Amino acid sequence: MSNFYGVIPYLVSPLTADGNINEKVLGDLCNDLIAKGVTGLTPLGSSGEYAYLSDAQKRRVVEIVVEAAGGRVPVVPGVASVSTEGAIEQARLYRKIGVDGIVGVLDSYFPLSEQEVRSYFLDIADSVDLPIVVYTNPNFQRTDLSIDTICTIAEHPNIVGLKDASTNTGRLLSILNRCADKIDVFAASSHIAVSVLMMGGKGWFAGPACVLPEQSVELYNACKRGEWEHAARLQKRLWGFNEVFARFRLASCLKAALQFQGYAVGDPIRPQTPLDAHAAKTVTDALQAASSPEFAGA
Amino acid sequence: MSNFYGVIPYLVSPLTADGNINEKVLGDLCNDLIAKGVTGLTPLGSSGEYAYLSDAQKRRVVEIVVEAAGGRVPVVPGVASVSTEGAIEQARLYRKIGVDGIVGVLDSYFPLSEQEVRSYFLDIADSVDLPIVVYTNPNFQRTDLSIDTICTIAEHPNIVGLKDASTNTGRLLSILNRCADKIDVFAASSHIAVSVLMMGGKGWFAGPACVLPEQSVELYNACKRGEWEHAARLQKRLWGFNEVFARFRLASCLKAALQFQGYAVGDPIRPQTPLDAHAAKTVTDALQAASSPEFAGA
Amino acid sequence: MSNFYGVIPYLVSPLTADGNINEKVLGDLCNDLIAKGVTGLTPLGSSGEYAYLSDAQKRRVVEIVVEAAGGRVPVVPGVASVSTEGAIEQARLYRKIGVDGIVGVLDSYFPLSEQEVRSYFLDIADSVDLPIVVYTNPNFQRTDLSIDTICTIAEHPNIVGLKDASTNTGRLLSILNRCADKIDVFAASSHIAVSVLMMGGKGWFAGPACVLPEQSVELYNACKRGEWEHAARLQKRLWGFNEVFARFRLASCLKAALQFQGYAVGDPIRPQTPLDAHAAKTVTDALQAASSPEFAGA
Amino acid sequence: MSNFYGVIPYLVSPLTADGNINEKVLGDLCNDLIAKGVTGLTPLGSSGEYAYLSDAQKRRVVEIVVEAAGGRVPVVPGVASVSTEGAIEQARLYRKIGVDGIVGVLDSYFPLSEQEVRSYFLDIADSVDLPIVVYTNPNFQRTDLSIDTICTIAEHPNIVGLKDASTNTGRLLSILNRCADKIDVFAASSHIAVSVLMMGGKGWFAGPACVLPEQSVELYNACKRGEWEHAARLQKRLWGFNEVFARFRLASCLKAALQFQGYAVGDPIRPQTPLDAHAAKTVTDALQAASSPEFAGA
Repeated sequence: MSNFYGVIPYLVSPLTADGNINEKVLGDLCNDLIAKGVTGLTPLGSSGEYAYLSDAQKRRVVEIVVEAAGGRVPVVPGVASVSTEGAIEQARLYRKIGVDGIVGVLDSYFPLSEQEVRSYFLDIADSVDLPIVVYTNPNFQRTDLSIDTICTIAEHPNIVGLKDASTNTGRLLSILNRCADKIDVFAASSHIAVSVLMMGGKGWFAGPACVLPEQSVELYNACKRGEWEHAARLQKRLWGFNEVFARFRLASCLKAALQFQGYAVGDPIRPQTPLDAHAAKTVTDALQAASSPEFAGA
Repeated sequence: MSNFYGVIPYLVSPLTADGNINEKVLGDLCNDLIAKGVTGLTPLGSSGEYAYLSDAQKRRVVEIVVEAAGGRVPVVPGVASVSTEGAIEQARLYRKIGVDGIVGVLDSYFPLSEQEVRSYFLDIADSVDLPIVVYTNPNFQRTDLSIDTICTIAEHPNIVGLKDASTNTGRLLSILNRCADKIDVFAASSHIAVSVLMMGGKGWFAGPACVLPEQSVELYNACKRGEWEHAARLQKRLWGFNEVFARFRLASCLKAALQFQGYAVGDPIRPQTPLDAHAAKTVTDALQAASSPEFAGA
Repeated sequence: MSNFYGVIPYLVSPLTADGNINEKVLGDLCNDLIAKGVTGLTPLGSSGEYAYLSDAQKRRVVEIVVEAAGGRVPVVPGVASVSTEGAIEQARLYRKIGVDGIVGVLDSYFPLSEQEVRSYFLDIADSVDLPIVVYTNPNFQRTDLSIDTICTIAEHPNIVGLKDASTNTGRLLSILNRCADKIDVFAASSHIAVSVLMMGGKGWFAGPACVLPEQSVELYNACKRGEWEHAARLQKRLWGFNEVFARFRLASCLKAALQFQGYAVGDPIRPQTPLDAHAAKTVTDALQAASSPEFAGA
Repeated sequence: MSNFYGVIPYLVSPLTADGNINEKVLGDLCNDLIAKGVTGLTPLGSSGEYAYLSDAQKRRVVEIVVEAAGGRVPVVPGVASVSTEGAIEQARLYRKIGVDGIVGVLDSYFPLSEQEVRSYFLDIADSVDLPIVVYTNPNFQRTDLSIDTICTIAEHPNIVGLKDASTNTGRLLSILNRCADKIDVFAASSHIAVSVLMMGGKGWFAGPACVLPEQSVELYNACKRGEWEHAARLQKRLWGFNEVFARFRLASCLKAALQFQGYAVGDPIRPQTPLDAHAAKTVTDALQAASSPEFAGA
């Protein structure tokens, strides 16, 4: 079990025109999010385009976020690799930089057996003394984690949480029914957060919270107070922004929304192209609808 | 919008040893379910092994269920076809027998365009004067229905409801956000019913309600009373039975559970084989756990 | 092992404007194909839109083709069902009508175990005294046949051939390496026929042969004479027509091509729509390129 | 069009027990393969576990192979990346080391548009003056290359070849029909090499050639001499080894086979585990069957 809870936004990776990490913008974004009530920060997820960055860029991102957080909220970067050694190396480096935990991702090339999937996570957990939130995404990783595997690796003291990016909330309920005493379950952008929290979820690792932090925190707090019908109304409105992720790329949506909010985060990394004007308008319309002043009274 | 609401179990198709529909068992099952509070009956869904039955068998199933219901609750059989004419013919026949609506399924062979999917449903709706609940199942039908298509066909006065058998509850929320005023949304077995009801769902078409009717009705009523935390506790317990569907075939689970409850429903239809002893025990253990006396106090 | 060999076209199912089987057109097509050298006829395949026809329509198609063939070439209709009983019933009916064999298709709804797949085919083979060509299509059937299953059921004396509609010719070579002495292997439209024949294939069940019979027969004969480089040149030209199947629906392409050739086969069955003018031109251009006079000298 | 032709084996990446590249073993393997007649060497493909290696390991592999080849045959390493910049950086580095071309792989994370796929390859081709063989693998890369895209990028003078790792040889024939004058097509392990060569293929980039070089070269030469029936017999025997790739991981099969041949290549990279004894025997049996003395007279 972990100390992580609440709303933990995935961060984008802002780039300057010449392809370097934009340190100022990333630091400002971290400060603003903390000021608006988020309870953690996660760089180097899908939203952060981790797969597109060089090792040096990833390192720099982690350094900046740790520095900006300054211990006010935990920093839990993504650690993703195809090889066990690659993941351990990243995790050890980020631990030295001062992170509070990692989100562990298995990127597989050749599909793996259940036993190999388990050993990947257990070998990382044995090698690095950091709490690990296991991430599983059947759309983007070639090997999914079975419920059996999740409940087995949850026995390891360093494996404290699960973030599942399927759209299948019933799967989370099955996991909670099986091993809620051993692992915290977190919602992802593809789940209805209210549903996950109602079933016992501990919080919410999600992209939208990077651009809608106050609304996300308000939703979480309504759930904590047991105001479920109010939370459902907030969720309905907020979901309009999640819907754009089903149409465009996650990171492209977030970068377009952040630019609209005044953060010079730059474009998605090549060969990705930025959203065209029509798509960008769809995203910013959804952003405005979800963040309108009537939100509080939704 | 429809008159359908609440808990509408999918019925299995009980067979005698020589392959005929077991009329006595099917009639008894209908009577017992109505006595236990269900608000509708749906024969010829996936649970009813519609794809395995001859035209004559399907007709007989509908006749028996309509007779057993005797107007006490609506009967809403599945109508599934690859061809438009095939679906219209079934729908007209079932209307003559006296059904109150149909669940419309598109079984496609060659994948279809959006426009062809729409015309399938609209041509049925134009040809038969019955309320239609559109069913979409990305796992078992080759062509899925987009949210755009659903909201477009929802304009037709005969298209009154949607039952989506994906596991993606967020998709239902998107549909409710887009066209809740034009179409009722129902939960399927693959969704957490509480989540769908909290978001505005009208009821629940589902296999488990065929073997756990009282628990399903209690869950629905708790939601209607706004007792969300109580409903969530009931849901967690009930979900244990849904979990067996992720391991074995839906119809095989239901037939094993009903046999355990004393209904002589026979085996799944060939080439399917019945659950082996170990699988059957997993199913009946899950059934008992979900139906134990402590349920009420869950 | 079978008596089937050479070029066996899949037939379309011509329909009149009021939805009946167009008996005259179907009979003429059979006669013309036989005159052009085909060595068998297969109604009720994918090309014949079997999944869209009623039981009565399918029966009529078989009757017409058997009558038209008049014993000159074998008639081998598709028999496809989700249930074992459904397949046996069709096979027995078609045997009475006078067919020479069947192409056995497993259409599954709930996915099946290997053992269930085997029992489907073996139960048909035990119940009907007709040679069976097993058809497997990973794109259109929900359960594929493993190489192990194919080699196991090939032991049954009534299971004489295999037509595999994957695009994976290497899979056919693996089957030939494993059990070429027990089962004949046939090319499908998705394979390069020359490759299959070079590896030991016995013939070619395919849609294009319905509209390009002479060219298909010439290709087969070139292979039989060991003129591989000539056959490869013929194949390259003929392949241009296969390419349209990757863009439009198989049956729609064939119906458009046959209409161009003067056969009043009618439109694809609803909810399918006919090819639009641009698509139809792509198909007829490909047809003309593949059937141009220079073909002989290719 | 390229200077590459014939049999170009994919190389494994031999590792010492402490996880470094085994320079001696890799150098010996290169020398032995050249002595046996291969016409090129490709490190850092799937067979070479490129996705599991660090940047430093990949660099070392290329250095060793270039040195071992000593200009006798072209060295054409894999360059794979999710980001355009990542690919350009690798390509420039390998060019400096002295390679003769690259096999360009697009590893995508978020799915890409056609235009983005094209720009990835064209941007590499614009940035590095090396011949590029484009590699497409629908199983392992998230974004496939359409035939349109392939024929479009083939206009670039630096894009000289295509290696397609689907199992769909008909797709290769379509490409050859469309743009054989602009791009050389090569067989991959998943294709029947004889079929590709008969249709106009220029050669064969494949894993099996790393363990069966003489047999692969003999097969290629038989095709070049137009001895197609002899080539087909050789192919049938050789295919037995390809079949193990359908059962176990490509790189694991090759490492097991090379260890059997006396090369200390080490185990597959973690979290992959080595083949168990039974699987390893299946692989070495297949190797021996394909390399038996009777092969020449097959």
